Parts: sequence; C-alpha cells; structure tokens
Amino acid sequence: MKFVNIYATFSALFARMSSTGLDTSNELAPQSPLSFLDSVLRGIGQVMLQNNSYTGFIFLVGVFYNSVILGIAVLIGTLASTATAILLGTDRADVRAGLFGFNGALVAIALLYFLEPGILVFGYVVLAAACTTIMMAALMTFLEKWGIPALTAPFVFTTLMFVLASARFGRLHSTGILPTAGLPKAATVEGIVTASTLTEGLFTGVAQVFFQGSAITGIIFVVGLLISSRAACGAALLGSLMGALVAWAMGADEAAISSGAFGFNCVLTAIVFSRGFFVLNVASVAYGLLAVVSTAVVFAAMSAVLEPFGMPALTSPFVLIVWLFLLASPRFLRLRMVAAQ
Amino acid sequence: MKFVNIYATFSALFARMSSTGLDTSNELAPQSPLSFLDSVLRGIGQVMLQNNSYTGFIFLVGVFYNSVILGIAVLIGTLASTATAILLGTDRADVRAGLFGFNGALVAIALLYFLEPGILVFGYVVLAAACTTIMMAALMTFLEKWGIPALTAPFVFTTLMFVLASARFGRLHSTGILPTAGLPKAATVEGIVTASTLTEGLFTGVAQVFFQGSAITGIIFVVGLLISSRAACGAALLGSLMGALVAWAMGADEAAISSGAFGFNCVLTAIVFSRGFFVLNVASVAYGLLAVVSTAVVFAAMSAVLEPFGMPALTSPFVLIVWLFLLASPRFLRLRMVAAQ
Amino acid sequence: MKFVNIYATFSALFARMSSTGLDTSNELAPQSPLSFLDSVLRGIGQVMLQNNSYTGFIFLVGVFYNSVILGIAVLIGTLASTATAILLGTDRADVRAGLFGFNGALVAIALLYFLEPGILVFGYVVLAAACTTIMMAALMTFLEKWGIPALTAPFVFTTLMFVLASARFGRLHSTGILPTAGLPKAATVEGIVTASTLTEGLFTGVAQVFFQGSAITGIIFVVGLLISSRAACGAALLGSLMGALVAWAMGADEAAISSGAFGFNCVLTAIVFSRGFFVLNVASVAYGLLAVVSTAVVFAAMSAVLEPFGMPALTSPFVLIVWLFLLASPRFLRLRMVAAQ
Repeated sequence: MKFVNIYATFSALFARMSSTGLDTSNELAPQSPLSFLDSVLRGIGQVMLQNNSYTGFIFLVGVFYNSVILGIAVLIGTLASTATAILLGTDRADVRAGLFGFNGALVAIALLYFLEPGILVFGYVVLAAACTTIMMAALMTFLEKWGIPALTAPFVFTTLMFVLASARFGRLHSTGILPTAGLPKAATVEGIVTASTLTEGLFTGVAQVFFQGSAITGIIFVVGLLISSRAACGAALLGSLMGALVAWAMGADEAAISSGAFGFNCVLTAIVFSRGFFVLNVASVAYGLLAVVSTAVVFAAMSAVLEPFGMPALTSPFVLIVWLFLLASPRFLRLRMVAAQ
Repeated sequence: MKFVNIYATFSALFARMSSTGLDTSNELAPQSPLSFLDSVLRGIGQVMLQNNSYTGFIFLVGVFYNSVILGIAVLIGTLASTATAILLGTDRADVRAGLFGFNGALVAIALLYFLEPGILVFGYVVLAAACTTIMMAALMTFLEKWGIPALTAPFVFTTLMFVLASARFGRLHSTGILPTAGLPKAATVEGIVTASTLTEGLFTGVAQVFFQGSAITGIIFVVGLLISSRAACGAALLGSLMGALVAWAMGADEAAISSGAFGFNCVLTAIVFSRGFFVLNVASVAYGLLAVVSTAVVFAAMSAVLEPFGMPALTSPFVLIVWLFLLASPRFLRLRMVAAQ
Repeated sequence: MKFVNIYATFSALFARMSSTGLDTSNELAPQSPLSFLDSVLRGIGQVMLQNNSYTGFIFLVGVFYNSVILGIAVLIGTLASTATAILLGTDRADVRAGLFGFNGALVAIALLYFLEPGILVFGYVVLAAACTTIMMAALMTFLEKWGIPALTAPFVFTTLMFVLASARFGRLHSTGILPTAGLPKAATVEGIVTASTLTEGLFTGVAQVFFQGSAITGIIFVVGLLISSRAACGAALLGSLMGALVAWAMGADEAAISSGAFGFNCVLTAIVFSRGFFVLNVASVAYGLLAVVSTAVVFAAMSAVLEPFGMPALTSPFVLIVWLFLLASPRFLRLRMVAAQ
C-alpha cells in the first residue's frame, strides 16, 4: 500500500500540472485554436519538463535564433504529435499539459538535423511525430504499473528507428552529421580543457537538449527556465557543469566537452531531481548528485554502444538513469517523499 | 476499471478461440492422436493468426510446394513445441488453439533456412522449438498484466539466439543466406520498380511470412486465409501492397520489394487490425493504416540494426508495432472496442 | 489467485532467508560492525546464491588464492554496494541477506579485470558498485509484479555501461583482456577436446563465476558451496560439466571449453534449479536440464551479439534463462511448487 501511494504521487505530479479551468467532461469536443496553441507551446516547454507556455515560447525563440529550419521543425513536430493526440481522442488534460508535444518536437528536430530536407522528409517527419504520440500513450499504459513517467523515450526510440531506416531508403540522404559507423576503440586524452571549455560547455550543454551547438541559445534557454522555475534553472546549470566536470576528470575529448555533448543529459536528469519529490536532506542531495554523475557515464557508454550503428545516444542516458532512480527510490527509507507526508 | 475490461477483452479474443467441446477439467489427461494433429495444424494456421486447422493444412501445402525440406521443418517444429507444451502440462485450450505451435513452426523453418541440415541441426531445431514453448509461456505471464499477446516474439528471440550461437559452434554451418555482417551505410535507389515488381511483391510478401520467396506459395497462402476469414485475406493483401508501396516511395531496393521483404511484417500487422477489435470508423481505419506504414519503416530500421550482427529482422517489426499500438489504444477515446460496448 | 501465491513463494524464498533474530523495527538504526561484516560476507556468498557468511569467506579465499588485486576488488565492491544500501535506508533484512552485496562484488572484480588499476579506477569502481545498489532496488520494484528475482542483472548492466564508457574516457585504460571488437564470423572446430579439457573445464567453470581462470580456485569454491548446501554443490558441478559437454557437442573452441567459458553461466542456472522450488519429478528434472542446456546456447549467442562492441557476455545468459524459466513455470501444471502444497 505504501508503494502504491508513493507511485500515485509521482504520477500525479508528472501527469497533471495544468488542468486549471479545463472542462474535461467531453474529451471529443473540438478544441479552440487558442487552447491548441497553448498546448503546442507547453509541449515545447515540456522538452525540459516545464509545463509553461511562456517558457515554451522562449525555447522556440532560442532555436530560431540558431537555426530557422530547426525552429520550423520544432513547430511542425509539436503540431503534428499534438494534433494526432487530439484527433485520436486523448485525455484533454494530458494534451493541454503538453505531454503529447515534446517528443514530437524532438523527433522533428532530430530528423531535420540528420537528414537533408525535402518534401519526402517533411512527410517522414510528420509520420514520425505521429508515431511518438502512439508510443507516448503505449509507454504511459506500460509504465503506469510503477507510476513512472515515459520521459523522452518515445523520442529516442522513434528517432533511432526513423534514422536507421534511412540506411535502406535511397530517397533519404544523410546530412553527414551522424556519427560514423565504426567499432569502438580505446580513447586517448585529446585537447586541453580550459576555463573557456567549461564556460562554453556549461551553456551549450543546455542548448544541446534541442540539438543546438550555440552558447547564446543555451543562455536563452536558461532565461526560459528561469521564468518557469528557479529550481529548474539552477539545476540545469549545475547538471550541465557536472556533466562537463565528470567528462574532464575521466579524460574525455575536449571538443566533446565544449560542444555540450556531456551536458544535455545531465541537464535533464538534474531538472527531474529539482522538482521537489523528496524532502531535502543529505541522502536526497547525494542521490540526485549520484544520478547526475551516472548520467554522464551512461552517456559515454550509450554513444559507444551506438557507434557500430552510426547512431547518436540522444537522451537515452537521461531516460535510463531517471527510470532506475525513480523505480529504486521507494526502497530507500532515507528518501522521504514530500507529497507522501 | 475501464482499462482492465478492455484488456481482458483483448486477452480473451486472442487466447481462447477454439475451446468448443473441450474437456479442460483434466489438463494432464492423455490427448488423442486426432486432437494432437488438430493442435498441430491450428499451430501452423496461427503463424498468420488463424485458429483453423484447414488453413494450417493449406499453409503446409504452400510451403511443401516451394521446398520439401522446409515443409518438413514446419512439421517438426510445430510437433516439438506442441508436444513440449503438452508434456509440461500447459492449459489444454491454449494448446488446442495452436498457441504453442506457431513459434515452433517458424523457428524450425528459420533454422533450416539459415543452417545446413544434418543430424546435429535437427536436434538443434527440436531444442529451439521446445525453447519457444518456454518463452511463449513466459511472455504470456509477463504480458498478461497489460492483456497483450506474445505474438511471434518467442520465434524472433529464439531464432536470433540459436543462429547467433552458430558463430561459436564449429559443427553448425551457415547456408550462406544470412545477411553479411557489416556496418550500415547510405542507400541509393537501385533498380526500377514496375507493375511486375509490385505484383510479385504482393504475393511473395504473403509467402515470406513462412520464408518462402515464391509468388505461387503466396497465392496458396491467400487461399488458406480466405477459408478462415475474408477480412484476414483482404487485410493480408492490402498489408503486403502497402509495405511494397511505402518501400517504393522511400526509394528502397527494387529486388527487396519484389522479394516481398517489405511485405511480410505488414501482412501480419494488417491481419491483427482486421480482427474487429475496434468499431469501424475513420479513427480506427487511420490507426490501422498508420500501424502498417510504421511497420514498413521499422522493418527497414530493424534490418539496419541487425546488420552488424549479420542477422535478419524476422518479424520483430510486426511484434514491436502491434505491441505499441495495442498498448496505446485504450488511451484513445475515438478507438472504441467492439467487445467493450 | 493461484499465480499470486506461487509468485509470493518465489519472492519469499529468494528474498528472505536469514532474518533469524533480526530487529527490523528500525531500518535506520546504526548497524554494528560485526553485523556489517556478516552482510558483506553473505553478499560474497550470494554471488552463487548462498546466504551463508562462511561460504562467502571461502569464496573470498578462493579469489585471493588466484589474484590478490581481484580479492581486494571483491572486498571493495561488496563494501561499497552494501554501505550504499545501508546509508540510503534499505530494508535491513535484505541487506543482511547479502542481497545488496553480490552485484557490487562482481562489478568491482569485472572493472579491475578489464581496466588497468589506478586511483581514478578505484573511484570508478566505488561509483559503479553504488550504482548496482540503485539498480538492484529498481529491479526489485520492477520485477516484484511477477515475483521473480533480479539475479545478477545489475552487475551485467552496470559493468557493460562502465566498461563501454571507457571508450570515451582517455584516462581509463583497458588491460587488453576484453574481447576484440569485430563482426561475427563463422566458427570452425578448433583444438581437440580430451578428458583433461573436460576436467579442467569442470572446475574452471565454477571459478569463472568470479572471473578466475584457475581450477584450484574452482575447487575452493566447490568446498565453499558444500558447506552451505550439498544440492547447490552437486548442481554447480553438474551445470559446469553440462555446459562443457554442450559446447563440445556443438564444436566450440577447445580453449574456450577448458577455460570454463561455457561453464559459469550453467553453474548458476543449475544452482537456481537445485533450490527445491519444484517437487522432484520427471518434468521438473527435464525442465532444469533444458534450462542448463539453453544457457550454454545463449552464452554462445550473447558473446556473438556483444562482439561488435568488444564486450563479454558476463552472466547475461544465466539471467535471461532463469527469468524466462521462472516466468513460464506457473503455466506448466506438471511443475508443482513445493511450497504451494
């Protein structure tokens, strides 16, 4: 019984945060254009777990600042996955909270990052975004037995499938940004990490959540987070910094550190742990720090695992670590849930 | 509660379709030779989800038409997995419905397709078929929490394990039909797709469910489906055609399209959606079409993922897509279950 | 209801075997040094599923006999994972039974086997051992729905992640013992298997559970098992022999057989089946033998699957096979549970 309550708390915290004033009595009623726009912007905000349309708008600005085509991709993907959810008659509160938007946003940006644009590719993006909605619903059903959230797993799985498939589809062309397929080999320490590496890595780590290699975009994202939650903003910066520091300590490539590659998964893990599930004490802080450090190690591992396929790790390390740490938490009595008190 | 009912409906529809007149009061009583033969033929029919012994018999004829040794393989595999289920005391109604036969049939045909026959290999086939029965039971227990069926997952997993293991076993020799192990690389459009490509692909797509690259065998299978269900027969043809069309649109290799490689998974997905779970409306038709199109994309992806291992995708795309779409469906209010009304 | 009872029996048998005289009323009370030492030794014993501190001590002696550094690794790993469990406030009876020790022991020995020792590596080992505790708790929560145990899955997953990550970390250096990354290719029969191959393989198979390629260490381990359980001791030897015989029959490399590579997973599977869950009858003995033989095949398969990543199979075959056979067992009426009678 205790576990059930704890899990119900997780679910409730994750799934419903925005239902103020919503009439959910008729899920199939047509939605007003304004509330649809709101759902889309919240969907963009949910890429960093923020159910806030202003934050979503600022994230969109940050992407457009660095790349117009990827900004368009974010809009198309979020629109397509949110519209699919509405057309199939999904729970209105979930749609309104942006839960069916963020995976669509990410899959669209990933496909247009890795594949040369064209009419066929835009159709492919819409198809992939629709698939993230199916997979989100499937994972919600699967994971509700444990009360843990789907996170960006639909994005990771759908992107890998749709990019891998391009190896069989002659009309889809890679942009050349994908990692070269190869067998893993031993690393050597390359480049010298300086204060500038860490500063740049700090902000690009935040920007890389949306595949943007720009420190300015990272700063815009930080502002977006600040509007929604000071805790999330601080956690994002701390997570990005810790990812870079772990990578530096272990002797990772300097270029990878400054590009934010080791940061973006740690940013997301840190934001999850900043949400106040646990009473603040030594154990919960140590637990969160362990999660962030492990995320950096798992990022290195997942990028090595995916090397023979020529695929990037995306946010798979974040998903794996947060699932494990949330599943494990009810067994640790020193981690007391705030809401369970 | 609503979810539970919906899932129970799935389970019931999938698992029990043939228990008319069965005495299940004593699972351990000896089975008559005739009812055992009936279980075996239904097991062959279940390869395309048909609980019908006549259909199973026609499928067997279709395989023998194209290859005597693979016809023998189908018999041995279905016998071995069904007998294992009976000897261990499995629920008689499930055995009678052929649920412990189809994975055995498929694993046997796959092993004798990929490995040079010999006494050792026949023993290996029987061992593998017995393992599919264990795995079927394991997956039934695992998946019953969500009320979704195991499908051909035991076949996929067991075949991959037993073929991969041959890389360590010097007395097992590959037939040379396995894909060459290699790293994924970019595709180009190869060959010109004509009406004859599509016509041949249409029927070989159905035949490839049993690893048969023969349009005539495909036509025999279509007749077998027609006996059991007009809806399944139409869905199989539509699925095969859609798989070929998606592959064509995306620029897949002409030879792969005409060989039915893009068809067989779509055939199986389409048959599942033809079974009348959902009330027929725009949403349910669109949902089914989306599932079939996604199956073709995931087939391309899975064959790329398995390339470094030199392994074929088998029916893994069908299993993945159907699991996801069934898990997701209760969250979509526009998809109303027929049986839940 | 019947299933629930059966599963509860599994859980109870696996999880609590040592709570005699424990005061579990306060999980957060400080633990005495002696009971902590006892937990650590039981953790080492649990590597072969023995909740017995004497057995754990003898296993430790066996490792030290062959390698001082790996003996130290076992101590550090078990200490670190057990201490993490205590600091986070885990159920005291589980900690006392060594359930939070064995994965830490194994991950530490694996990392110091595959990576050159150094201060950074020792920190890495402690981090990895702490992660096995999180993953153990996570899997316990995940798997309790089916009442099956986590086994060494936390060790397998954590080791793969932490060793794979070294491909990105320039300050971690491989010892050169890892398999060379490559694409799977056909095997030929190499070397001639003699009575000496089988005798050596019999004992090194037991030793390889702790990564020790020494027949003497294997004999010490056998003595350790004998102290705890005659059934476990006999099962370990039978499992090791069967693994070697299956490998021989299939034409595996002679050097792999004599090194115990085909034995250690079969040892563990056999020990699980020796624990008396099922009433002893023809079906349950056949079921156990099928599990052991399948473990040898899956070992060959997993080592081929992991070849492109240059990673070893570890105990993944044992985990997969035991999960499948335990999940499946309630559906087989001829396998009657002892405790359910």
